[in-house]
Amino acid sequence: MSHYTHSLKSILEHINSPKDLKPLNQENLRQLATELREFIIDIVSVKEGHLGASLGVVELTIALHYVFNTPIDKLIWDVGHQAYGHKILTGRKDIFDTNRQFGGISGFPKMKESDFDAFGTGHSSTSISALLGMALAAQLQGKPERQHIAVIGDASIASGMAFEGLNHAGETKANMLIVLNDNAMGIDPSVGALKKYLTNVKTGSAKEENIFECLNFHYTGPVDGHDLPSLIKELEILKHVDGPKLLHVITTKGKGLQKAEENQVTYHAPGKFNKQTGELQRKNAALEPPKFQDVFGKTIVELALKNEKIVGITPAMPTGSSLKYMMATIPERAYDVGIAEQHAVTLAAGMATDGMVVFCNIYSTFLQRAYDQVIHDVALQNLPVIFCLDRAGLVGEDGPTHHGVYDISYLRCIPNLAIFSPLNEEELRNIMYTAQLGLDHPIAIRYPRGRGKMLNWQLPMKKLPIGKAVVVKKGHKIAILSTGPIGNMISEMIEELNQPDAIAHYNFPFIKPLDNKLLKEILSKFEHIITLEDGAAIGGFGSAVLEFANNIGIHKIIKIFGVPDFYITHGATEKLYKEAGIDKMSVKQYVQQFL
Amino acid sequence: MSHYTHSLKSILEHINSPKDLKPLNQENLRQLATELREFIIDIVSVKEGHLGASLGVVELTIALHYVFNTPIDKLIWDVGHQAYGHKILTGRKDIFDTNRQFGGISGFPKMKESDFDAFGTGHSSTSISALLGMALAAQLQGKPERQHIAVIGDASIASGMAFEGLNHAGETKANMLIVLNDNAMGIDPSVGALKKYLTNVKTGSAKEENIFECLNFHYTGPVDGHDLPSLIKELEILKHVDGPKLLHVITTKGKGLQKAEENQVTYHAPGKFNKQTGELQRKNAALEPPKFQDVFGKTIVELALKNEKIVGITPAMPTGSSLKYMMATIPERAYDVGIAEQHAVTLAAGMATDGMVVFCNIYSTFLQRAYDQVIHDVALQNLPVIFCLDRAGLVGEDGPTHHGVYDISYLRCIPNLAIFSPLNEEELRNIMYTAQLGLDHPIAIRYPRGRGKMLNWQLPMKKLPIGKAVVVKKGHKIAILSTGPIGNMISEMIEELNQPDAIAHYNFPFIKPLDNKLLKEILSKFEHIITLEDGAAIGGFGSAVLEFANNIGIHKIIKIFGVPDFYITHGATEKLYKEAGIDKMSVKQYVQQFL
Repeated sequence: MSHYTHSLKSILEHINSPKDLKPLNQENLRQLATELREFIIDIVSVKEGHLGASLGVVELTIALHYVFNTPIDKLIWDVGHQAYGHKILTGRKDIFDTNRQFGGISGFPKMKESDFDAFGTGHSSTSISALLGMALAAQLQGKPERQHIAVIGDASIASGMAFEGLNHAGETKANMLIVLNDNAMGIDPSVGALKKYLTNVKTGSAKEENIFECLNFHYTGPVDGHDLPSLIKELEILKHVDGPKLLHVITTKGKGLQKAEENQVTYHAPGKFNKQTGELQRKNAALEPPKFQDVFGKTIVELALKNEKIVGITPAMPTGSSLKYMMATIPERAYDVGIAEQHAVTLAAGMATDGMVVFCNIYSTFLQRAYDQVIHDVALQNLPVIFCLDRAGLVGEDGPTHHGVYDISYLRCIPNLAIFSPLNEEELRNIMYTAQLGLDHPIAIRYPRGRGKMLNWQLPMKKLPIGKAVVVKKGHKIAILSTGPIGNMISEMIEELNQPDAIAHYNFPFIKPLDNKLLKEILSKFEHIITLEDGAAIGGFGSAVLEFANNIGIHKIIKIFGVPDFYITHGATEKLYKEAGIDKMSVKQYVQQFL
Repeated sequence: MSHYTHSLKSILEHINSPKDLKPLNQENLRQLATELREFIIDIVSVKEGHLGASLGVVELTIALHYVFNTPIDKLIWDVGHQAYGHKILTGRKDIFDTNRQFGGISGFPKMKESDFDAFGTGHSSTSISALLGMALAAQLQGKPERQHIAVIGDASIASGMAFEGLNHAGETKANMLIVLNDNAMGIDPSVGALKKYLTNVKTGSAKEENIFECLNFHYTGPVDGHDLPSLIKELEILKHVDGPKLLHVITTKGKGLQKAEENQVTYHAPGKFNKQTGELQRKNAALEPPKFQDVFGKTIVELALKNEKIVGITPAMPTGSSLKYMMATIPERAYDVGIAEQHAVTLAAGMATDGMVVFCNIYSTFLQRAYDQVIHDVALQNLPVIFCLDRAGLVGEDGPTHHGVYDISYLRCIPNLAIFSPLNEEELRNIMYTAQLGLDHPIAIRYPRGRGKMLNWQLPMKKLPIGKAVVVKKGHKIAILSTGPIGNMISEMIEELNQPDAIAHYNFPFIKPLDNKLLKEILSKFEHIITLEDGAAIGGFGSAVLEFANNIGIHKIIKIFGVPDFYITHGATEKLYKEAGIDKMSVKQYVQQFL
């Protein structure tokens, strides 16, 4: 018997590593689950972060670390925002209150942070492939005893990459266990035929053969994912089953906090809340500029009510992207296709061949998943799909897996594709208006996470000329060329300087095509040229300006402010801007040497 | 009765459009199949191209155009190298002998070429998504009668993107028919658990429920794909079945040419052959330099025999990449994972976490499919995966869907990742040798389709210093900086000029990290700087040189020779180089103005 039985209120406090779980009895473990849940709620209610997913896997987390021998056995958390309990049980309890903060621990598993994080995650559906790699490496290196486990949600397993992993794993004898954490949710409710099928499995109405068995997996389930003794029993059994196997576990997202169970979308990442009642801590209702997401979401509705060719597509981000407004208003023309970026883009291409005006909204970092489809299915065929790249630039607390900083570089080399980054809400609305009037080429519109600058943003929309830049402010000595909302910083900076007349500011919403006429004037006139963007400096907007200057034979120093060639960490955006050297102070210091 | 019954030898000659099929009877159609097969063999035996796939779908092609009302009904050919019969029956018979040639018709379906090509293809597994887009557009636009059909092979349907399409389609009421063309082959034999499952379905040993039915598709099959009357009967029935449906058709790749049936991999694209016997036309056995593919394929075996940590991965290209040599010699460490680039990359990452030295060989154009995985799973975690990007640069007859011209631009912005382009066979071997000794970062090695320049290439290998460029030839006036085998052209050009002393030539195999020391010397010393690469000029090697020059404050004209910002067509590589303006003559003309 463990000594813990005598001090039931303090079990978690004595857990510094999974080995501390081993002596616990069932009653202790149940108690630990309660404490772990409270611990997560305590901290996330104050420090913010992902809540629902981690609450849903408290018992599973304990069971996995109780049964398996981590970190020798490899445990991968797909996506990873459900791994808070894992982090807390694996030595990071005392620093868990630094979660997602600058200098603190990551909100996702991260190999450099802990040996217990067998593989870094963030984007979905990578776990099966990575796990199979480890399991095959174990075979080759003579480690037959090592166990390999991935926990993956039902929304993530429906993504193409996961299927590719299952398809390969199913023909191997790799020793690996996929735990399907089925809560019928991603961030938003799961969609797709597989989800319906899993529901049938759960309710017993599916017919004999199981889809995972078709793929040659040993299937067990469904098991109640909040029933610790059952979980432990099944995992112990599966430990001794050879080859690829899948345990289907049913959980409730937000389990243990009533409001989180009832409002699973809101409580995915609820911000601050009252830890007893779950009540959200509403911010001061002062008038604020809108989120760019809502500008997109409300503007597409406004446009689609008038233009019946408009459709909207989101891969599993109706809430995050605010396409939810269109899904509520015009459901027949707004599609949530699940975590399926590749499909989303080519679906858009297919619709565009038939005259539909398609807004395909994908986070910048997730468009990396559909890069080939943008080139091969959209741009090569010159189909006028309108990509809305949400969360472009540095995203803050989600960190390097989620920063949308490569898009300009990876899109700029694609023929036919225009690239636009609005300065503000008005420009975003105007480019959406312009694009839906009918372009003869595709366009990518990139805008950041978070709020704009305009309180009065629902202005009448107007058509923008393609490829035109804007003179924000004239000047005579230094020209600053910015793209995107980061340009607002320049206006502030100029006001703060004592020689504002020296500085000209140009807004280049079109990164491609560039406004060559204006650019040539600028390059000819000014002694000092500065470019500023919230994307990678390599191959980005600044490089485009440089390439153009070189092409027309103008040779001046062009100071490029962009994200440097290393991975920017997580934390508050202001801090990240500073780390990247694209904050106001960095630009100001550079400018001041010429004043 | 049709008049064709009286002149059986000339049915094909009267088919100028699918509407000419409608009056034919079953005997006519059978005869047409024979003629169509002969026509394909006649032309491909002389003009080269893809053979086996089109021979396998002759009956299916006729049946589809007989039953459906193309081009009103939408017909998509996944990948598209099986669409020769389709092209011949849809008005391109008389120009079919220009197939894949510069200025001729494309080897793949292409929307601009014909209204009958409902969607351009080339890369696999796009058809379901595009078709669903069209079917949903038909719903929205009130076209309930329009039919939508995609033909997809069993290797292609196992790719993640196809699963995403099925998963979405299965929850819609879209009027679409997926014809699964199951020949158990991609280019190489199909792999994976789904393939085994489909075999079980064919042999009747699969259990009750069908995997496609699990995804809510109406399933019919398997049907003999060479039995025209059965095909027509099933298609007629399915025309009247609502919602998403799948017809499982069994075909033989290469059907009708005995050697092609017996050697399906060789006869996928056999080059010239004797149309009666099928005998391959062997080229003069004169000693030729090796293909870069074979340099890779034989060198990895040589290295892996000594270094037991080495593994090789190919997504469905064992023959094309020449990983087949390792699969034959060291099968336990060489993996064909199927058409699953995303999985291939993250599998490699997983293996690398456990100390394996992974060569992940992917065609440059197909790495676009795994771009996110390169960033998120490999480079962000700084795992030393060795990417071998085959078919980088302009690939010739396969055309714009397959040119590997974006890789430098899309990889250069990724922190931690080195990029290397060998000048020749020796450099390819040396970088492979160097990489397997153990790097502390990932590397992408890009090399082209086709032969190198060295007859005596199996030299002892040596370790290359990371980031070092090479002085190929000294000079005093003009510096030419090249990366990759295109640099060999510069050596030839210099010999042809009458002032060879004026020109210096530098080989930059490392595109990243650049040899900054040497580059600074060059930039300081020379009046005229030229860069040359077989990739996109935007954001490529030339831009890297330009960015560096700007960073160190050197301002000179840098003439960048790279692939311009439009899509380069298909045809012989020399013609494409000229079209892209990166041929020897273009460089020479530029150089001569300074001599």
